[in-house]
Amino acid sequence: MTIYDKRNISMMMDLYELTMANGYFSQEQQASRVAFDVFFRKNPDDGGFAIFAGLEQILEYLEGMRFSEEDIAYLRGLNMFREPFLSYLRNFRFTGDVYAFPEGTIIYPDEPIITVVADLVQAQIIETELLTQVNHQSLIATKANRIVRAAAGRPVSDFGARRAHNNDAAIYGARACLIGGVSGTATVSAGQAFDIPVGGTMAHSWVMYYQDELTAFRKFAEVYPDNCILLVDTYDVLRSGVPNAIRVFGEMEAAGVRSKNRGIRLDSGDLAYLSREARRMLDEAGFTDAKIVVSNSLDEYTITSILEQGGRIDSFGVGERMITARSEPVFGAVYKLCAVAGPDGVFRPRIKISETVAKITNPGLKRVYRVYNADGKAVADLITGQEGVDEAALRTGYRFVDPERPWKKHEFRDCTAKSLQRRVMAGGVRTEPAASVRDIAAYVRAQLGHEIWEEEQRFENPHKHYIDMSPEYYAMKMSMLEENHG
Amino acid sequence: MTIYDKRNISMMMDLYELTMANGYFSQEQQASRVAFDVFFRKNPDDGGFAIFAGLEQILEYLEGMRFSEEDIAYLRGLNMFREPFLSYLRNFRFTGDVYAFPEGTIIYPDEPIITVVADLVQAQIIETELLTQVNHQSLIATKANRIVRAAAGRPVSDFGARRAHNNDAAIYGARACLIGGVSGTATVSAGQAFDIPVGGTMAHSWVMYYQDELTAFRKFAEVYPDNCILLVDTYDVLRSGVPNAIRVFGEMEAAGVRSKNRGIRLDSGDLAYLSREARRMLDEAGFTDAKIVVSNSLDEYTITSILEQGGRIDSFGVGERMITARSEPVFGAVYKLCAVAGPDGVFRPRIKISETVAKITNPGLKRVYRVYNADGKAVADLITGQEGVDEAALRTGYRFVDPERPWKKHEFRDCTAKSLQRRVMAGGVRTEPAASVRDIAAYVRAQLGHEIWEEEQRFENPHKHYIDMSPEYYAMKMSMLEENHG
Repeated sequence: MTIYDKRNISMMMDLYELTMANGYFSQEQQASRVAFDVFFRKNPDDGGFAIFAGLEQILEYLEGMRFSEEDIAYLRGLNMFREPFLSYLRNFRFTGDVYAFPEGTIIYPDEPIITVVADLVQAQIIETELLTQVNHQSLIATKANRIVRAAAGRPVSDFGARRAHNNDAAIYGARACLIGGVSGTATVSAGQAFDIPVGGTMAHSWVMYYQDELTAFRKFAEVYPDNCILLVDTYDVLRSGVPNAIRVFGEMEAAGVRSKNRGIRLDSGDLAYLSREARRMLDEAGFTDAKIVVSNSLDEYTITSILEQGGRIDSFGVGERMITARSEPVFGAVYKLCAVAGPDGVFRPRIKISETVAKITNPGLKRVYRVYNADGKAVADLITGQEGVDEAALRTGYRFVDPERPWKKHEFRDCTAKSLQRRVMAGGVRTEPAASVRDIAAYVRAQLGHEIWEEEQRFENPHKHYIDMSPEYYAMKMSMLEENHG
Repeated sequence: MTIYDKRNISMMMDLYELTMANGYFSQEQQASRVAFDVFFRKNPDDGGFAIFAGLEQILEYLEGMRFSEEDIAYLRGLNMFREPFLSYLRNFRFTGDVYAFPEGTIIYPDEPIITVVADLVQAQIIETELLTQVNHQSLIATKANRIVRAAAGRPVSDFGARRAHNNDAAIYGARACLIGGVSGTATVSAGQAFDIPVGGTMAHSWVMYYQDELTAFRKFAEVYPDNCILLVDTYDVLRSGVPNAIRVFGEMEAAGVRSKNRGIRLDSGDLAYLSREARRMLDEAGFTDAKIVVSNSLDEYTITSILEQGGRIDSFGVGERMITARSEPVFGAVYKLCAVAGPDGVFRPRIKISETVAKITNPGLKRVYRVYNADGKAVADLITGQEGVDEAALRTGYRFVDPERPWKKHEFRDCTAKSLQRRVMAGGVRTEPAASVRDIAAYVRAQLGHEIWEEEQRFENPHKHYIDMSPEYYAMKMSMLEENHG
């Protein structure tokens, strides 16, 4: 295989998916109907929420999942699988139902973001790729949104491809950055694949190639008068880079060239100090329109600090710390069996207890609602059984349980609710067209602008969103725990 | 684009590569001959070294680099590029020379791991993908090796696909883990692509699917008597999981089934305590051969701690913290212009000064040697100009400069040297066949076993490998810095 060859993502799974599937198949359990939930356990960076991303690629994967003759031959060579199972794989199609939150939804721990209802073997072997997409893209979308919030209205661009964890991480990572609120990416293949804005100007090599910095800047201005952002830190920012940029901007004016977009980029040193000094020098020279772009190991913390120190910055190029989510590069979504249908077709709940309390699962088929107050603010999410919520009661008085403080008496009043899961695939076929990255990004913006409390959006000790339960659902979960303990 | 479509990795680049290339092309500089170095600046996790990985994918990329009509149309639509440049891209082939350390070489900061000598535009537009491959795979190989060292001879497997930063990160990450010394991977597509061992048994879903744990274990033992690793933490490790496993192993014996590989896996809780208790229970039941496999957020630090506390563990499954290099998920290799050929064909050095001292580059065409003492231990690396090292002098007395302590008088004596860069591509064509992952891993093992000091391999304050310079090279670099300062 070379990196150019067509990949069969259908084989991107942990081997145990196939050993279990072969086991279920041997015991003629393959068509047993089951339900699995995807959920995560902790907001990255101790934030108040995460952003769900990656659904589009999951649906592509499920629609396209096939095993080629080469795949079958490879699996046969492992000497682990029985021939009837390999024949089954040869004709494999995913025919299950998938319920999911819309891509871009603000999400919280322990909620079923995706629920797969399918035949046992089908539901099992899709685990790895579902998790990989949700984990990677949600991680990056969530991190990007933190960085965008820190930039406080200034555009942020993704410059991360070279530090991404290989090609997909650069390309789908750029997609996730856009979902999180970034304005554009430097990654050409991502721009091409997802119709998202691309940008970029010069590297140090441009400056180093020419005999001196002034010549390099003049050459660049000749070719790109209308997008003339000059990188000023190759030799000495304030003694060489900025003065040479000012000289070239002056020469352009003298020659009657009006630039639509001119400015400088700083990529090293103290960005707060250098940007203030550069701003002063540019302004004194009359180039008040010249932009200052900065890059170099930025994230929400360094951006906040630079702006607090009066950095005069028009836009940020953010690389490694966004594309790898450096401060916490793991998004821990898991895929857990929550229900198994009996011969009567009725789903019965399953629970995982675990040695670690946080790893106890929410059993059974569930519904999840976002509950809004009269101002349209999301006051809590509510998990119920399949009976759902009584919407009339939400207005007049609906008792619920806060599972962290079950002794307290609580009720919703004057509230409305939106069911978060929608069926996005029925019998293996999508039920709605793909959303564009721009539309998903707009949905994120709208939620954070109108529905989600500011208190959940701050970086330090954000308010913890309530994940409540209907009294019936809570009682069912407790009875399963007690039964297991006994 | 769906995740199944053939990808054109040729477009995986930062847009500025193309804006600069178009600029050079406009100024008829495209065929100017230049040299770029790939090097990194800091060992991850404050370690003593890193491991070079990703070269094979770089060579595949350079050999296959093409721009399709769709790519050209996309670029034209950006309204940034002149038609002659787009025509040039349409017929693009990489025809440069590439010099590189062998894949798997132990590497240190500031050494040219790869040097590209090519026409200016060719050398420029390959930057991003070269860095992405080196950065990702070297990062993961280096991290995996740390984890393998902590495991002190016990096998380590890669369980990370679901937490990897998308598909490539799982697949090429598994490749890098193997180069770092991991014994196998759970990721099927990586096993298939690179001919590396795959393994895996069961998830919690297997246990939860059946009505009770004992039934689940019996069913698994029926299908996989010879690879029967039972996951014992779904309900209660010591009160349910281990006793049920022991019962099933006993039933297998009673039925005359001899298992080649049986044991348990622990995936939560206190792994030191639980593994000791489980070992005692298994031994008391007579199953001294039963293996104990552990997983759950492991890395070199947790593994060291568990083993220090007497954990009784036969092998480790390591997921998120290896496949994302969680503790430091960025490997900062860069690609910097180091020389430009004049009309006479002679390469003249270029240097980048920067506001940050650590970002000053090593100018010019260079050679890098690993210098060995009479015991075959690598005592230092040595950077020289193209004249290279005098090997006879290394035996009798070779003066060099330690650039961090240039006032000191040093010499090598009774030493030998190996040149680390080899030409791996000439005129765009590979000069040697691809090495297998197994061979690269064996090369890593051999270096760490024989050449590299133990003192560089410890985690706490490892010895810092010396990167010395020939007196001539050091003098040349200093004169360039002084010239720039003046």
